[in-house]
Amino acid sequence: MNKVLVIGAGLSTNSLIHYLLENSTKYGWTITVADMSLESAKKRVNNHPNGKAIQFDINNSAQLADEISKVEVVVSMLPAFMHPIVAKECVKQGKHLLTASYVSDTMKALNDEAKQKGIALLNELGLDPGIDHMSAMRAIDDIRGKGGKILGFISNTGGLVAPECDNNPWNYKFTWNPRNVVLAGQGVAQFMENGQYKYIPYHRLYNNVRTYDIKGFGEFEMYPNRDSLKYRQIYGIEDVKTIIRGTLRRSGYSKAWNVFVQLGMTDDTYKVANSEKLTRREFLNSFLPYHPTESVEEKLKRIIPETQDEVIYNKVKWLGMFDNEVIGMPNASPAQLLQKIMEGKLGLDPNDKDLIVMLHVIDYELKGKKYRKTSTFVIVGKDPVRTAMSITVGTPLAIATKMLLTGQITDRGVVVPIKPHLYNPILNELENYDVKFVEEEKELD
Amino acid sequence: MNKVLVIGAGLSTNSLIHYLLENSTKYGWTITVADMSLESAKKRVNNHPNGKAIQFDINNSAQLADEISKVEVVVSMLPAFMHPIVAKECVKQGKHLLTASYVSDTMKALNDEAKQKGIALLNELGLDPGIDHMSAMRAIDDIRGKGGKILGFISNTGGLVAPECDNNPWNYKFTWNPRNVVLAGQGVAQFMENGQYKYIPYHRLYNNVRTYDIKGFGEFEMYPNRDSLKYRQIYGIEDVKTIIRGTLRRSGYSKAWNVFVQLGMTDDTYKVANSEKLTRREFLNSFLPYHPTESVEEKLKRIIPETQDEVIYNKVKWLGMFDNEVIGMPNASPAQLLQKIMEGKLGLDPNDKDLIVMLHVIDYELKGKKYRKTSTFVIVGKDPVRTAMSITVGTPLAIATKMLLTGQITDRGVVVPIKPHLYNPILNELENYDVKFVEEEKELD
Repeated sequence: MNKVLVIGAGLSTNSLIHYLLENSTKYGWTITVADMSLESAKKRVNNHPNGKAIQFDINNSAQLADEISKVEVVVSMLPAFMHPIVAKECVKQGKHLLTASYVSDTMKALNDEAKQKGIALLNELGLDPGIDHMSAMRAIDDIRGKGGKILGFISNTGGLVAPECDNNPWNYKFTWNPRNVVLAGQGVAQFMENGQYKYIPYHRLYNNVRTYDIKGFGEFEMYPNRDSLKYRQIYGIEDVKTIIRGTLRRSGYSKAWNVFVQLGMTDDTYKVANSEKLTRREFLNSFLPYHPTESVEEKLKRIIPETQDEVIYNKVKWLGMFDNEVIGMPNASPAQLLQKIMEGKLGLDPNDKDLIVMLHVIDYELKGKKYRKTSTFVIVGKDPVRTAMSITVGTPLAIATKMLLTGQITDRGVVVPIKPHLYNPILNELENYDVKFVEEEKELD
Repeated sequence: MNKVLVIGAGLSTNSLIHYLLENSTKYGWTITVADMSLESAKKRVNNHPNGKAIQFDINNSAQLADEISKVEVVVSMLPAFMHPIVAKECVKQGKHLLTASYVSDTMKALNDEAKQKGIALLNELGLDPGIDHMSAMRAIDDIRGKGGKILGFISNTGGLVAPECDNNPWNYKFTWNPRNVVLAGQGVAQFMENGQYKYIPYHRLYNNVRTYDIKGFGEFEMYPNRDSLKYRQIYGIEDVKTIIRGTLRRSGYSKAWNVFVQLGMTDDTYKVANSEKLTRREFLNSFLPYHPTESVEEKLKRIIPETQDEVIYNKVKWLGMFDNEVIGMPNASPAQLLQKIMEGKLGLDPNDKDLIVMLHVIDYELKGKKYRKTSTFVIVGKDPVRTAMSITVGTPLAIATKMLLTGQITDRGVVVPIKPHLYNPILNELENYDVKFVEEEKELD
């Protein structure tokens, strides 16, 4: 096997494609990079002799079938909802597929046929999902290997801005899809804590944060993700007493973000009337009760008493929410309007670098004593192209692609990297790319 | 036309079928009552010589076609989502249809074909929708007829328990579908007040109530319904400055109900783990944070400070939320568990009577002066069969059926009762059934 098709050439594919091209001479690979934009594909290939850039339309099924027929391995970097189109064609033609996305139900349904045809559908090989699973399973397997019993597992990830580029009161910038940030946490957070099932509705999520101090990087806060419970089964820790997966932000973010959640301004289920004409101030006022004399500022402080705290109030004000500037977005939901306002303020500057933080806290029992193991990994982007996000999403996927091409992965069907023969070589090689976990351990009282 | 098929023979059909049978001799009608339960159908027909009870399965399309072919007019009292099945067959065979439900998109789509075939699809002929539209439009048309201009329109309806049967701290009993009560208000409330669009998210809805005093019946409170804005177009009052449609409860209900909304216990989107084993106390505790020493009661008072108010706390306690009694419902959502707990406490006693309250508040301008017109209607159920709900849902529908059969309604296609030639005769005859609006008017400063 030596022919690879990479579908998608967006910003996050930089490290993946760079790795594959860099290794292509040694292993004799040819890498075809396919994207809607030929220019983007060419940029990633950068005239490498083993690379080929093509213009590609995922909705052109003849082209999809044709390009897949020319290779042995396909890597899909398309948005997750598009993977099934590629996966079905791969299974049909008996070609291997790799993605950095969660296994969808459609993907799962292809398991039997993929096994039958002797191909691998490797998924969850990015950062989150990806490095989170691999590092968690390595720590869990390590403890169990010594005869320990896992009591609690808390795992947190955050995509943030590098400390040296952190220059706004939110201590946040959009380093990834802004829409996902605005909609984050909608639904219910389900987890288990000290043997009790806990359910936190969205409107209470952001005042239920926990804080963590990370050496050299200061304080972070975490809010639980939607369904943490399913990870008991995925990680094989069914009788654990605590399981929580969370998202990390800089301390103070959640209290301010909660103002918008409380007001209902993150709702994406309906359109705001005359949204194209609304000023920021009018938009905010739509979520405050009518009052004949009170100002928007006064009403906000009365309705959301937390905004009487100057630090929180100033974050809201800094976004320009009280300004008479037209937002200018027709037929928009509250979430879309809020996103547009925030993009103007929280976008990355041309030279900004990003930051990825991952933190596992594992409690376990060994020979009658209780311990807490903390495993932390922090990476700062090299530059605006070689972002921490691109490195951590693309490199594990690239390493897995190499392992598959060189016959080191013989698993078939739908696979995720939770077994030692998969996570060990990937995590070991990732250390060459600054993905290094620092472990600490202490005995609990 | 003299042959009518009534589909559905549940409790709410009593007044409808009684009216039709009572008038059947005078007009020479025969009334077929069809229900899943032959017994229910027979009970409604009560051996009336012009009535016929049949066992009926809505999923049996051959039977549906056959029964519709025998009549000229069909009245569907099925749950609203089933109307389209009946409507399509009626249009196919060229038979008239009446319902007490909102016009769905599927119903709307049948408009052209219904007109072509010369049949009427009459909808929204119950209480809400139904009497609310008719009484609102009569008041609006009356004001406009005098040259007045509508400035504001607030319309409220509540289905409650009769004062003489009101013997619990919630001042509420389930007189209608309990599931709808538990899920009430989910989504966003959209309305306009004094020229400003307002959006209230579900988690803020129940602390945004307005109160009304109704002579002889005391104080009620109102929370806005989901989409009030669309009634500007329906009622032809596009340039009104205030439009709100709301639901009425007894004062104090919303503050206590809000405890469950705040905690997330009305969520119907996921299943609670091990729900079949949960006690009421454990269920409540699932929505409170873990604490090594605090009791459920203490945590509730800390997390939802409103429960420090004894009146609110006692409503929660009266439902048995702190009890160690198993709820006993497998694979249930929070909303389903809460509903089961409430049904055990807020169900109607065998001799309980219900209460319907409707209240319109219309502000208008006439010859340079501003006025407020209040139109109120209150009805108490006669007995547990002749409920206020059955009378107000079934009687307008029955009167419309008579008007259609006797040629007084010549409208064709999809029709709702917002025109004088429809609402006037119906509202006038409804006065014989204790559906009487009391109007008051005052000049505004």
